[in-house]
Amino acid sequence: MKSFHGKLLRIDLNSKSYREETIPAEILKRYLGGKGLGSYLLLKNVAARIDPLSPANRLIFAVGPATGTRMPGASRYGLYSKSPLTGGYAESYAGGRVAPKIKAAGYDAIILEGRAQGPIILEISDRGVNFYPAGDIWGKDTYAAEDAAKDRTGASEAQAAAIGPAGENMVRFACVENNYWRSAGRCGLGAVMGSKNVKAVVFHGQKLPPVADEALLKKFITDLLSASKELPAVKNYRKYGTPQMVALLNTAQAFPTRYWSRGTLPGWEKISGEALITDGNLDVKPKSCPHCFLACGKLTTIKTGPHAGLKIEGPEYETIYAFGGLCCIDRLEDIIYLNDLCDRLGLDTISAGNLVALAMEARERGFKPEFPAYGDASGAARLLEEMAYRKGPGAVLADGIIPAAKALNLEDIAIHVKGLEPAGYDPRVLKGMGLGYATSARGACHLRATFYKPELAGIISPAATEGKASLYIEYEDRLTIFNTLINCVFYRDMLQWPELQTLIKALTGWDYTVAELRQTANEIITMTRTFNVSAGLGKKSDLLPGRMHSEPLPETGALLTEAELLKMRQEYYSLRGWNQDNQLVTAGKE
Amino acid sequence: MKSFHGKLLRIDLNSKSYREETIPAEILKRYLGGKGLGSYLLLKNVAARIDPLSPANRLIFAVGPATGTRMPGASRYGLYSKSPLTGGYAESYAGGRVAPKIKAAGYDAIILEGRAQGPIILEISDRGVNFYPAGDIWGKDTYAAEDAAKDRTGASEAQAAAIGPAGENMVRFACVENNYWRSAGRCGLGAVMGSKNVKAVVFHGQKLPPVADEALLKKFITDLLSASKELPAVKNYRKYGTPQMVALLNTAQAFPTRYWSRGTLPGWEKISGEALITDGNLDVKPKSCPHCFLACGKLTTIKTGPHAGLKIEGPEYETIYAFGGLCCIDRLEDIIYLNDLCDRLGLDTISAGNLVALAMEARERGFKPEFPAYGDASGAARLLEEMAYRKGPGAVLADGIIPAAKALNLEDIAIHVKGLEPAGYDPRVLKGMGLGYATSARGACHLRATFYKPELAGIISPAATEGKASLYIEYEDRLTIFNTLINCVFYRDMLQWPELQTLIKALTGWDYTVAELRQTANEIITMTRTFNVSAGLGKKSDLLPGRMHSEPLPETGALLTEAELLKMRQEYYSLRGWNQDNQLVTAGKE
Repeated sequence: MKSFHGKLLRIDLNSKSYREETIPAEILKRYLGGKGLGSYLLLKNVAARIDPLSPANRLIFAVGPATGTRMPGASRYGLYSKSPLTGGYAESYAGGRVAPKIKAAGYDAIILEGRAQGPIILEISDRGVNFYPAGDIWGKDTYAAEDAAKDRTGASEAQAAAIGPAGENMVRFACVENNYWRSAGRCGLGAVMGSKNVKAVVFHGQKLPPVADEALLKKFITDLLSASKELPAVKNYRKYGTPQMVALLNTAQAFPTRYWSRGTLPGWEKISGEALITDGNLDVKPKSCPHCFLACGKLTTIKTGPHAGLKIEGPEYETIYAFGGLCCIDRLEDIIYLNDLCDRLGLDTISAGNLVALAMEARERGFKPEFPAYGDASGAARLLEEMAYRKGPGAVLADGIIPAAKALNLEDIAIHVKGLEPAGYDPRVLKGMGLGYATSARGACHLRATFYKPELAGIISPAATEGKASLYIEYEDRLTIFNTLINCVFYRDMLQWPELQTLIKALTGWDYTVAELRQTANEIITMTRTFNVSAGLGKKSDLLPGRMHSEPLPETGALLTEAELLKMRQEYYSLRGWNQDNQLVTAGKE
Repeated sequence: MKSFHGKLLRIDLNSKSYREETIPAEILKRYLGGKGLGSYLLLKNVAARIDPLSPANRLIFAVGPATGTRMPGASRYGLYSKSPLTGGYAESYAGGRVAPKIKAAGYDAIILEGRAQGPIILEISDRGVNFYPAGDIWGKDTYAAEDAAKDRTGASEAQAAAIGPAGENMVRFACVENNYWRSAGRCGLGAVMGSKNVKAVVFHGQKLPPVADEALLKKFITDLLSASKELPAVKNYRKYGTPQMVALLNTAQAFPTRYWSRGTLPGWEKISGEALITDGNLDVKPKSCPHCFLACGKLTTIKTGPHAGLKIEGPEYETIYAFGGLCCIDRLEDIIYLNDLCDRLGLDTISAGNLVALAMEARERGFKPEFPAYGDASGAARLLEEMAYRKGPGAVLADGIIPAAKALNLEDIAIHVKGLEPAGYDPRVLKGMGLGYATSARGACHLRATFYKPELAGIISPAATEGKASLYIEYEDRLTIFNTLINCVFYRDMLQWPELQTLIKALTGWDYTVAELRQTANEIITMTRTFNVSAGLGKKSDLLPGRMHSEPLPETGALLTEAELLKMRQEYYSLRGWNQDNQLVTAGKE
């Protein structure tokens, strides 16, 4: 078995003990690692009805056959658990330098179980597991926690994933951070780590398994590089990063603005990708994960003014949308400041920005004068601190959008699916994104198919709904395979099915037909749904917020009707082989 | 086993004998009838390398589980054979009143083998098979042949399929006609029937098998009717028929004109659907197959003038494109006249119109003054007669586009795939149609996925190529299931996967998941490719004519590059599970 260890590490935090287990080759062959393995282990190890912040929940790290190789984009690890935000299936991925170290420690997956008595740092390496007390760094921000955790192990090559105050306080949209600015952002996995009293996990080691065909992999990567590096999409990532989307979405009039009441932000040009790289007060340099030639990351430093010296990797498009569009903050420096604050506190910027905007809307409506007004960046910063520390007016937001909207009596305007807020693509315009938000297992997710890509690139009409589920599923299947390998989904244009076949062959030696890979993807997605259905999140949770159906965007009148959504969803269920009539999964079930 | 007889009739024309065979239930369950059953029987019964006009070829009739029921659109039968036009897999379907009679005769499929000593009429009923001498009607046109064949049996409820002079003379694009104007048009199956000396086949009987759930079927049809009959698409079929496409294609600048050198016909408004129903000299009435509420057919009578009293069902869009667009004949009466002539002679209007236009282009280039000029309707009529009777200047066209272009030294401008000419959708504009033309087993076919529908309806961008194969395959899979039932593909919008599941359940009692139905479709399509590959039509035949890649349409500059086509084709092969590197089929093979 190549490219895998065939080994799982199970850590019992209650007893500070651990053991290795064998992962059968047939499981790896069937689920391919990453998301496939993580979802399989989640179904096997976590009862769907438990309290996600109780010791009964488990936090699963997984890597895949591409991890630790020179494959561009193979720098991501996956986290799987029961989400404290949605109560359903949780997954989240982060780039940077941690993933290869998890693999080099000798494991394909790691399961954290139970709850430590007090704050700890975990050191996981090819020489075993160490448990360090972490009372002294409890309370530190993620940057400091990461540094301190690495220092504690004394391993100069170590990498670490850490939580901030938000995770410690079990804020339900807290993230796990690494390399300061890389976040496993969504679903509140930082809160799960916090609930287990784990402040940071440090990884190091030298145990990388060989790939099946080193020469083929080398040739594959060389060919990929020469075929791709001059592609316009690649150049745009390198030049602008994800903020290139600001102009695209405003042009499409699908840039969520003023808490989902408009599709364009007046002055969006001030927070666009072009603005980012031409701003005289910003120093912006491309930054990539190891081996990646896209370099979507931007290392940005503010030169002068109140935030002089502040440095982040970012801001990402989603952060610009959440604070820029939804909160109407049209100054890049302010957005960068809020981004830095979220990273330090360990807050997911999408959820945090949505909650700040909901609070601003509450103020707009007159009944919450203690909340900041639209456009008020320092008010937003104050709210972020209040969320993370569960104190002051912002504390009401710390358990996520469903309890917050209920407490504020704003349930009719709250925008989320299953408790997770959408990313920056309005489904009234990009209707396939609506299908994705409604059906993604983790809630209103943009990443399961990144369907904004074909909808904005003219591959499929954004307004169409008929027949759309089929292409959606093709993207979702393909990207699901990306998340098993694990390879960054921004390589989606360059790695079509034949390339995935070759890559998997080079890594593992296994020949799969496309039909087999798609069957694997379908099984994995069906496993995530099985978890959700068991947790009580079935068909009735696969819906969009009512405003998407009833409140047209003022610029264009664009609307996604409920009938359109239900028709797409019915096609989606059918194509996945899922039963229409009730919530039980009837095909692809393990 | 419901909705099937489980019976096959095998007729040996050499010995004028016949026998019934049992079709195992597992074959019907696996291939569902119609195209699935026909393709299965073709692979089992016809060696791929035989001469298609020799007695070794066989002509297979098949119906499906929907045939003979009250399901709207279930009025079509399928013919399967080795094509004398392409040398590969042939299939063709015709509506009208024949299909239910084939089923009522007691069979799911009928195979004609060998060659009769002299011209015969076959009578196939639930009381056996009769062989009548037909020397007296040999030479008659299809209308007269159909009437005479029915009269000969004395069965008042009989229906008949017949060939005209073109089929008798084994013109390689001769069709099989029934109900005067309904044609199994493409691939030259009239020539196969002619090669067997069969002038007509008459069907009657009373043996219809029960469906599995009569109440469910009734409810399904009632629901379909009430959900669909006010749909704009349905109304347009009823009002204009397929000629509604003339305006759509000219607007899209994809209306093949002047032998594929332009995308719009000046004066197209004179031959549009609107022109048809408002022309004061035409009497136009909707005409439908039994139970169908679309009524795409138009019974058209010319009131006065040189063609006064001429009556046809039509003209169809494809006939208008072939004679109107390609031959630049912009008078509806002339097109109706040529349509009638093709129907009587038994010529496929698409191939015939393409060949007339090729001849016109030869004249335009100065070296064939005996051919008619563009726009010359009576010259076109003369050519059709010459093709059908293989005499005069038109005889050079009678073996189809490949030999004709070679003889005329016009191979570089001839437009076809595998010897079959495309329908009226220019693939330089509608790029998914290009994928369909290149990969369809029977040649440049528009009907395997009717992909002009999503491309013109704004469901997917016509110009896009990336990711397109996936949606193409969804349509092709779904329509393949239509052709197993057999149900008219014009119901494609109303019968999505869930509706197909319910319909099949009502008919057969069998529960299929969508995944199973798509697997069935993939197997069927892979069988058709297996036949082609065995016949020598592999990957190197799945290409478009060079002009589609090198000659931009003058109105728009539109072009489908070879690289775009090859990329789509590679995705298509991958998604079908077909080997990229050679012509062998590696997945889904029987």
